[in-house]
Amino acid sequence: MSDSKDNDLPIGIFDSGVGGLTVLKAINAELPDENLVYLGDTARLPYGTKSPASIARYATQATEKLKMQGIKLLVVACNTASAVALDALRAQMSPLPVIGVVEPGATAAVGARPGGSHLVLATEATVALGAYRRAIKTLDPAATVREQACELLVALAEEGWTEGDIASKVIRRYLDEATEGDFRPESIILGCTHFPLLKDSIQAAASDEVLIVDSANTTAAVVSDTLRSDRTLRVSDKAGTLRFLATDGVTRFARIGGRFLGQPLSDTEIELVDL
Amino acid sequence: MSDSKDNDLPIGIFDSGVGGLTVLKAINAELPDENLVYLGDTARLPYGTKSPASIARYATQATEKLKMQGIKLLVVACNTASAVALDALRAQMSPLPVIGVVEPGATAAVGARPGGSHLVLATEATVALGAYRRAIKTLDPAATVREQACELLVALAEEGWTEGDIASKVIRRYLDEATEGDFRPESIILGCTHFPLLKDSIQAAASDEVLIVDSANTTAAVVSDTLRSDRTLRVSDKAGTLRFLATDGVTRFARIGGRFLGQPLSDTEIELVDL
Repeated sequence: MSDSKDNDLPIGIFDSGVGGLTVLKAINAELPDENLVYLGDTARLPYGTKSPASIARYATQATEKLKMQGIKLLVVACNTASAVALDALRAQMSPLPVIGVVEPGATAAVGARPGGSHLVLATEATVALGAYRRAIKTLDPAATVREQACELLVALAEEGWTEGDIASKVIRRYLDEATEGDFRPESIILGCTHFPLLKDSIQAAASDEVLIVDSANTTAAVVSDTLRSDRTLRVSDKAGTLRFLATDGVTRFARIGGRFLGQPLSDTEIELVDL
Repeated sequence: MSDSKDNDLPIGIFDSGVGGLTVLKAINAELPDENLVYLGDTARLPYGTKSPASIARYATQATEKLKMQGIKLLVVACNTASAVALDALRAQMSPLPVIGVVEPGATAAVGARPGGSHLVLATEATVALGAYRRAIKTLDPAATVREQACELLVALAEEGWTEGDIASKVIRRYLDEATEGDFRPESIILGCTHFPLLKDSIQAAASDEVLIVDSANTTAAVVSDTLRSDRTLRVSDKAGTLRFLATDGVTRFARIGGRFLGQPLSDTEIELVDL
């Protein structure tokens, strides 16, 4: 039987900003008993346009902060940080498990469309690092992969313009660029935590047969499996607590974060921390 | 007669990223003899969504870096930093002149449309700070001012999608929001250094009689007047040199920066510096 003290420790979730709240929301839906602590490094967002060296340094500092708080598992809910720094963060947190968002998304896409063609929508940095391409090709050498940087989708998600004419036209333009030369993706992987908000609009712009892989849901499933196999799953008659930390701009965190969380957030619920 | 050593010192220009290159371009066009040194704090961009305390700290560090290099005048080519920290930066650089982008834009708008109604398009932070409203109302108490946050325009400018259907629809949507309740602006002030790239599309979306105030051009005119009155204008038969410093991501700086500069930039021309 596992140590109940460990079971009660929260799952740490870290992102550069509010986007990772889509991952928190998915974990909370999958595992409502678990305590969750979320750290958004809003003082230094976005990571997606920074250099790998800076991203790795920021991710290490954020991880240290959560480790000091006491957590039982770390979720790197930022595609860019997962792509750059996952191995370093695993060494830092050892022996505790560290789960990034790239592997779960790649695994789900490959499992659903073996030998298929996959389109990854992501930030510039994630595309430049080729993390999804590598993860998919390792799992399925027969797969075909294209990666498309879509910076404007981040702004659309933050502005809350996730439906309607402008969202469809922007998505259509990126898909047209990505499918040039008759590339027909069988899956589209949402390789940025902002993009689940645009999932319906992306599905509408792609054909019905295209599978949209939402890395928030796939990551939550991996978290659940890991806690079960580590026997640190918390089973309680009280719902888990949610705690939110940010490195800057708690008012904006609350306002924009509510969209990603799918429920209102008040700025009094956000603790300002230094890294 | 002025000291020719001072005359040869560069003008320092500082911004959170590449947007201020629109101001550098305007200064270079107005004063082609001047040496210019540009510092983009790309490691910490965007300032537009950060808290005032962080913005002030970053601006002070960037100013110190340029001061140590030796400059004769500082241009704060970032609306957010101008709005938050101009007084502090003036104290830091004293007795050298410091020129922000807010006052020149406000002065130009008020001069052209006395007692008029003005719409300021800017980032969230600039709008939250109300710097343009204050500057305009101080100059012209009879003026009417509205400020509209337009984060998506930043992304459009960086993506290079400055013309066409998507740009017009996004601009139209922001103008519709801003003009609700029958507000009819006589001037539109581009209160973010990214927005001069969208000037034609903004003019097309507004009516022809609306004056678009480009703070890059208005700031360059104030720089020119200041150097003349300080007798530190450089008059030479050699064109001034341009030097570019960035705190992160020189490749991206070169690629995106070229759009703002209106000419190609190579990443070998950008020096990486720490603040």
